Amino acid sequence: MSLLVVGTMAFDAIETPFGKSDKIVGGAATYIAWAASNFVKNIQQIAVVGEDFPKSELDALAARGVQLEGVQIKEGEKSFFWSGKYHMDMNTRDTLDTQLNVLANFDPVIPESYQGVEFVMLGNLTPAIQMQVLDRLTVKPKFVVMDTMNFWMEIAMDDLKKVIGKVDLLTVNDSEARQLTNEYSLVKAAKKIMSEMGPKYLVIKKGEHGALLFHEDNVFFAPALPLEDVFDPTGAGDTFAGGFIGYLAATKDISFENMKRGIIYGSALASFCVEKFGAQRLREITHKELEERVKEFVDLVQFDIKLVN
Amino acid sequence: MSLLVVGTMAFDAIETPFGKSDKIVGGAATYIAWAASNFVKNIQQIAVVGEDFPKSELDALAARGVQLEGVQIKEGEKSFFWSGKYHMDMNTRDTLDTQLNVLANFDPVIPESYQGVEFVMLGNLTPAIQMQVLDRLTVKPKFVVMDTMNFWMEIAMDDLKKVIGKVDLLTVNDSEARQLTNEYSLVKAAKKIMSEMGPKYLVIKKGEHGALLFHEDNVFFAPALPLEDVFDPTGAGDTFAGGFIGYLAATKDISFENMKRGIIYGSALASFCVEKFGAQRLREITHKELEERVKEFVDLVQFDIKLVN
Repeated sequence: MSLLVVGTMAFDAIETPFGKSDKIVGGAATYIAWAASNFVKNIQQIAVVGEDFPKSELDALAARGVQLEGVQIKEGEKSFFWSGKYHMDMNTRDTLDTQLNVLANFDPVIPESYQGVEFVMLGNLTPAIQMQVLDRLTVKPKFVVMDTMNFWMEIAMDDLKKVIGKVDLLTVNDSEARQLTNEYSLVKAAKKIMSEMGPKYLVIKKGEHGALLFHEDNVFFAPALPLEDVFDPTGAGDTFAGGFIGYLAATKDISFENMKRGIIYGSALASFCVEKFGAQRLREITHKELEERVKEFVDLVQFDIKLVN
Repeated sequence: MSLLVVGTMAFDAIETPFGKSDKIVGGAATYIAWAASNFVKNIQQIAVVGEDFPKSELDALAARGVQLEGVQIKEGEKSFFWSGKYHMDMNTRDTLDTQLNVLANFDPVIPESYQGVEFVMLGNLTPAIQMQVLDRLTVKPKFVVMDTMNFWMEIAMDDLKKVIGKVDLLTVNDSEARQLTNEYSLVKAAKKIMSEMGPKYLVIKKGEHGALLFHEDNVFFAPALPLEDVFDPTGAGDTFAGGFIGYLAATKDISFENMKRGIIYGSALASFCVEKFGAQRLREITHKELEERVKEFVDLVQFDIKLVN
């Protein structure tokens, strides 16, 4: 049940119609690690931070069982910083500021103890760095999941397509699936990605409208939980991906049926993530709360129809 | 299993990014009757048409078992006409032309044979006319479903609220739920409608993103089927409502569990509706096709998680 995670560990400053955060800890790999650690101990983390990154945050992850040997701390440098402002629908946002800092020269080093890992989560990051991580693994992993975003489609499409060609499952949102394929229909976009681009599995995230899992002719849909308040959607997609791959890695089962369960656990974790700023809520979830949340998903979509044929 | 349907029977001219129709038969009550007649024979139809409305269309509905005694044919007058153009997302549209014609002075007459009806579907129509129909029923129906749209919120909110106060279940789309309540969160909007406005049940339609059914603290979500091509969304909401109430009326069961099944049948019928212009596809559906489509919904959302508690 070994899982390697690569991605940003960073600072965010977030504005929503309902509030504004200070500079808080974020980054794809932070959310992924918190989510996946509900299922997997000894996550093998790869990231780079500056000397400004709080030691207490690293200690909290270590206490959770996350291995940090692959997290480089750059003395005299600053961590990656992103600032954004969400629109009223909480599904769209404007980037206010991006400071690459340590990310500009990130050269990911895979500790020897990480080699032989079975599951790999390439969190949203420069495609060339995602590729370096894959290239530096001496044993081909059992299953690689990759997340990315529109930003890389605009500035590094060639690099991006190379990584996409190497992974088993790609996660993108609906507009990114359209941008990647020039197909408006998500079903057509999914077919194009799976038949022409490499991944045999695809997850299309639709934010408050749920997520679709595609594989060959199979489609599974999981709704997002209808919530009274969405406080901060930052990291919800990373949390979803972390929950998904964490569940797969823990169960060591990559059947379509088991992936459905992974999608539900990922969705349940994402529904917690949006309740507070940053990864705060993820740090507090109990096993009982998670099971209760999954039960809410069961109740939300379950129906019983007797079919004749 | 008696069902009364009121709404427009009309002409539409439709433009989508994929094609353009001539002036074709449409109207809420047309779609509702075609959908509901999969479950209920002897639907009691209330509408008004001009002398331009094709007799063949009325004959086709009659052959389907729809009672047309309550459909007034106005000699020398023209049927209601609507023309619209859909945007690329097929979820939003612009109205190009609306000609009320016979609808301007519609005075709905309930034939004596319709009295005592158990289920009523108030299709999208002038709220004052929806109210007249309810007022003219001599026996209180078992269950009344009402559909409406933003247009009436803008020009007849007071009338609209009076009707909403009289029905058991309201169907609106997501932006209409927000407009009606001034709440952005759909969960909050649903609570407000159910606690303050009258209906004990609410369906929020989200087009390609599915539909939510609310009652007290229960929520059920049904996705829309992910389709390769959506050809014409006109009437999909009416078809959904017709399938839903047709199923309820046929089973005479208004439990929440049975409403879930009604939502699934409504969604399945709506997924056929969008495959061709107008109500064409609805006229062709076989029982076997419908069952197969429902099976696709089961496969789309079904998952199996063993919960500890």
